[in-house]
Amino acid sequence: MAQKKKDEFDDLGLGTKAPGGGFRALNKDGSFNVRKTNISFFERFNFFHVLISMSWAQFIGLIILGYFLVNLVFAGIYVGIGMEYLTGINGISSQDLFMEAFFFSAQTITTLGYGQVAPIGPLANTIAAAESMLGLLGFALATGLLYGRFSKPSGKIKYSEHAVISPYKNINAFMFRVINPQGNQLLEVEVTVTLSMRREHSDLRDFHLLELERSKVIFFPYMWTIVHPINESSPIFGISEAEMLTKDAEFIIMMKAFDESFSQTVYSRSSYKAFEIKWAQKFVYLVKQEEDGISVDVGRLDETEPAALN
Amino acid sequence: MAQKKKDEFDDLGLGTKAPGGGFRALNKDGSFNVRKTNISFFERFNFFHVLISMSWAQFIGLIILGYFLVNLVFAGIYVGIGMEYLTGINGISSQDLFMEAFFFSAQTITTLGYGQVAPIGPLANTIAAAESMLGLLGFALATGLLYGRFSKPSGKIKYSEHAVISPYKNINAFMFRVINPQGNQLLEVEVTVTLSMRREHSDLRDFHLLELERSKVIFFPYMWTIVHPINESSPIFGISEAEMLTKDAEFIIMMKAFDESFSQTVYSRSSYKAFEIKWAQKFVYLVKQEEDGISVDVGRLDETEPAALN
Amino acid sequence: MAQKKKDEFDDLGLGTKAPGGGFRALNKDGSFNVRKTNISFFERFNFFHVLISMSWAQFIGLIILGYFLVNLVFAGIYVGIGMEYLTGINGISSQDLFMEAFFFSAQTITTLGYGQVAPIGPLANTIAAAESMLGLLGFALATGLLYGRFSKPSGKIKYSEHAVISPYKNINAFMFRVINPQGNQLLEVEVTVTLSMRREHSDLRDFHLLELERSKVIFFPYMWTIVHPINESSPIFGISEAEMLTKDAEFIIMMKAFDESFSQTVYSRSSYKAFEIKWAQKFVYLVKQEEDGISVDVGRLDETEPAALN
Amino acid sequence: MAQKKKDEFDDLGLGTKAPGGGFRALNKDGSFNVRKTNISFFERFNFFHVLISMSWAQFIGLIILGYFLVNLVFAGIYVGIGMEYLTGINGISSQDLFMEAFFFSAQTITTLGYGQVAPIGPLANTIAAAESMLGLLGFALATGLLYGRFSKPSGKIKYSEHAVISPYKNINAFMFRVINPQGNQLLEVEVTVTLSMRREHSDLRDFHLLELERSKVIFFPYMWTIVHPINESSPIFGISEAEMLTKDAEFIIMMKAFDESFSQTVYSRSSYKAFEIKWAQKFVYLVKQEEDGISVDVGRLDETEPAALN
Repeated sequence: MAQKKKDEFDDLGLGTKAPGGGFRALNKDGSFNVRKTNISFFERFNFFHVLISMSWAQFIGLIILGYFLVNLVFAGIYVGIGMEYLTGINGISSQDLFMEAFFFSAQTITTLGYGQVAPIGPLANTIAAAESMLGLLGFALATGLLYGRFSKPSGKIKYSEHAVISPYKNINAFMFRVINPQGNQLLEVEVTVTLSMRREHSDLRDFHLLELERSKVIFFPYMWTIVHPINESSPIFGISEAEMLTKDAEFIIMMKAFDESFSQTVYSRSSYKAFEIKWAQKFVYLVKQEEDGISVDVGRLDETEPAALN
Repeated sequence: MAQKKKDEFDDLGLGTKAPGGGFRALNKDGSFNVRKTNISFFERFNFFHVLISMSWAQFIGLIILGYFLVNLVFAGIYVGIGMEYLTGINGISSQDLFMEAFFFSAQTITTLGYGQVAPIGPLANTIAAAESMLGLLGFALATGLLYGRFSKPSGKIKYSEHAVISPYKNINAFMFRVINPQGNQLLEVEVTVTLSMRREHSDLRDFHLLELERSKVIFFPYMWTIVHPINESSPIFGISEAEMLTKDAEFIIMMKAFDESFSQTVYSRSSYKAFEIKWAQKFVYLVKQEEDGISVDVGRLDETEPAALN
Repeated sequence: MAQKKKDEFDDLGLGTKAPGGGFRALNKDGSFNVRKTNISFFERFNFFHVLISMSWAQFIGLIILGYFLVNLVFAGIYVGIGMEYLTGINGISSQDLFMEAFFFSAQTITTLGYGQVAPIGPLANTIAAAESMLGLLGFALATGLLYGRFSKPSGKIKYSEHAVISPYKNINAFMFRVINPQGNQLLEVEVTVTLSMRREHSDLRDFHLLELERSKVIFFPYMWTIVHPINESSPIFGISEAEMLTKDAEFIIMMKAFDESFSQTVYSRSSYKAFEIKWAQKFVYLVKQEEDGISVDVGRLDETEPAALN
Repeated sequence: MAQKKKDEFDDLGLGTKAPGGGFRALNKDGSFNVRKTNISFFERFNFFHVLISMSWAQFIGLIILGYFLVNLVFAGIYVGIGMEYLTGINGISSQDLFMEAFFFSAQTITTLGYGQVAPIGPLANTIAAAESMLGLLGFALATGLLYGRFSKPSGKIKYSEHAVISPYKNINAFMFRVINPQGNQLLEVEVTVTLSMRREHSDLRDFHLLELERSKVIFFPYMWTIVHPINESSPIFGISEAEMLTKDAEFIIMMKAFDESFSQTVYSRSSYKAFEIKWAQKFVYLVKQEEDGISVDVGRLDETEPAALN
């Protein structure tokens, strides 16, 4: 049985020889503190993953930059061919000519094609035909990326800033709570909590999958308090606050749900370090019944009050 | 065992301290009676969720409005720059000029580009280049949204308007029936029924996961009657109609299926309140064999006839 | 145990009171012989399901027809407004004018916009601006539909035309075989076989979920023979060919797999009626090892040879 | 129990009568060594599967080729109709005329429509209207294909080039290790290892599903060593290196994971033949803790050092 348990720790995929010290395995935002070295750019780089994961500001900036650069390149090509192969050119200075070539390129790549300026002869026409095709493909790509970006799991679950050690029935429990702030329904929500703790007199860490009062709910319309009862089989049974800090404990959370809006399975990760746990506190009640339904005061998600431990 | 059962109630995710009173947890259309307060707009708002969940009328209205407003803004910009930077302008009154700028903007943002009107000089050309790019991106977004909207789970399962308490074998049973009105196949359909009932002499509610005669079917080509036999282990064993009304019972339904048309898992929710249950009635039979197959009279989905209870 | 079994039949979702007679529940192509009556068009109709499920010929025909009709309508509008509000019109006869309006409409809705013909004045310009917007949206829709259509489960599993009753170990077995003719990998393939048979001296049918020698494979690179051993617990144990015909047996197949090309779960359905079963035959072996791998002779999928039954 | 085991082998779907000889069932890149013969082109061919599975170079080449050919065809049509039905044509030689028709076609199919050249009369206008529609549809298709291509499971898991037989606890074990080189998170990663080995004095092969120390991890942030302990129940218990080569063993790997970037289940396959296994070697440790997290030296993935076997 103990052997069974030991196997389960490792289910986390973080390895058994995890480092000691004041190390945080999982950042608050769910990313891992892992750096891969000695790996070729080609192997590591996933073009679409990067384009889909970057922030919206970066993404839009990149599109604008790309649009600008591509037009710059094509303007150079049109100028290189000779501006006599474009109709309707009025500029005289080379700067003016370049600008007119630039705007002709923009009208071509977007398939706008006013026609005030148009290509003459096979070479300029071939470039323009290629550019408009490139524009359509680039735009097809942008369409796919935009869809890929916004249909990505948004699962913006909000975690209470602190976890607490509270009285629970006639023992104590480790608790934190989560809220679904958005309007989209999360269904069949599952949670796992794994404790990582430094082994005594050693640099190694042990991982413990914690037993929860409840690890799955069918609906998640507002709030859920996740409870790990600290009974005799708990790895933190009898541990003091000071000891938990010394052992550099980290509670690693993974939630999994079905997001009805996008018909997709979404994941959310977070973690609580020992210093983010309030002892002998309990969460205040934040659900109120009103005439037309339930009201949840999200602003009090992290509010606690003293509660004597058992 | 009883403890086990108690845990299961809570699987609903609606909390154990659910409010008493004449409260409906789940509306007929599957939405929850929950309001979140004290939450920042930024946290609550999911742009795409809103655009995907709004009605088609709202969505189309929004697109038309957006198209109109964007053109209004760009028309203002072109007029601001000076209409002398557009070719082919005929208007004299400022109203006419604005209108011409407005239509030039529309021709630019859709990449239509007739060319009767076209930009002159770097500034007007830059605006037009930016506008056509914006048009393409907006259109890419619309493409993604349209796809996201119509590939959304449609799972329009039709529930009988009332549930019934009917004789069943030599006991009675709680029954309702559902139909798949559309042509798309629903496969591996699962159902859970949870009963929420006010505790005696208390404001609290208990949640009970009801045992069903059958909770999963492989195919769902037409109709399915879901049956909860009221045997001794049922939480409504021995309860009278009056008592069920007093306890403000609510039967919360969740169905889950695989929609073959869109290759997606879809969910459907509904609920029956005590006053929506007909006692001592049974559903009439609505499937008929014809020469070339089975015929299902959907119009009689809610039709019942008296049936003496056991 | 028998009770357990009885529950399992019904898992098919085809109802326990299924009709008797020479009835086929499931057509060879996987569609159901079910007709729904008394249902409003609005409830039954799913626009996108229809557009996604129709054949390619119908779909393309519909697009061409739609394109033609929309241009017809807009041509009528432009003519109604007055052709003097379009530049570059040369026609004199009303027929010629209509045609020019028609082609102007086509150039507008595709955002082609040559500019030979262009709108003059607010009304014609407004129509043209609306039409180009409509064109973009229609095109966005077509993009989504095209993607939805071709990313749809293609799961073109090929079933042997007949099933056989063959000797198997020291008993007999019901067998059929399937092949994945395409290049896309199907992974984690699961199969269920349900037998529907008329009850003796009754119009009712019973459904039996058949036990299989193997009901899941991880890979499905070429062929799979699905085997139901006819041992004492089989519902067709001791049944003769004549009896199976009299009882109008139907073996209903459902397969489920993960299609790697489209990252989607796909389903396939088919059925064998009693008259499609060859008794005392076995399938010939069609896999051959060649130097560079395995060769599968798909043309012999349905080939059988006599084999004395046990 | 042994019978149970025997059933499990076959779970691979590669058939029990798999060929003997120096045969590799699964190539290193995860494709199968299977060729299907006697199958009609129509049944085997899946247009979209082919377009989605081909390399990017092939895909882009195909698009360019298609663009070129379609314009060639339409240029021929416009020339066939008569170049007098196009405005703005300057060429005299038939070669020049064809080229002008070609570029007009390109401007039409991309909906660029400069307007320097434009159709005159019903026939040329009809062709142009059809061509621009075709262009939009082709482009819609390209959009879908591009999205389908890049949202395809990328699951570029990197396998160690060799597997090893290493000491493990007080026995030995078969081990290989895998790394997720990219930035996208893989969650709930599962692995199965199946051994295919020639039966003694026979051409047949047996398939054995191997028991693993651990077959699933929740997270996969960097590296995972998959371990099959060679205890008494292992099919390679007591086998020597020479014997494994003679029996032409092949270890077939299948991994399954959820790729968070694309919200999709992805699969990865590979295999180790007997000659790709290093005996009495163990993998070197490649994870190092640094101040700000863990550092993984991917370049040493395949590095081993001698280790005496038990």
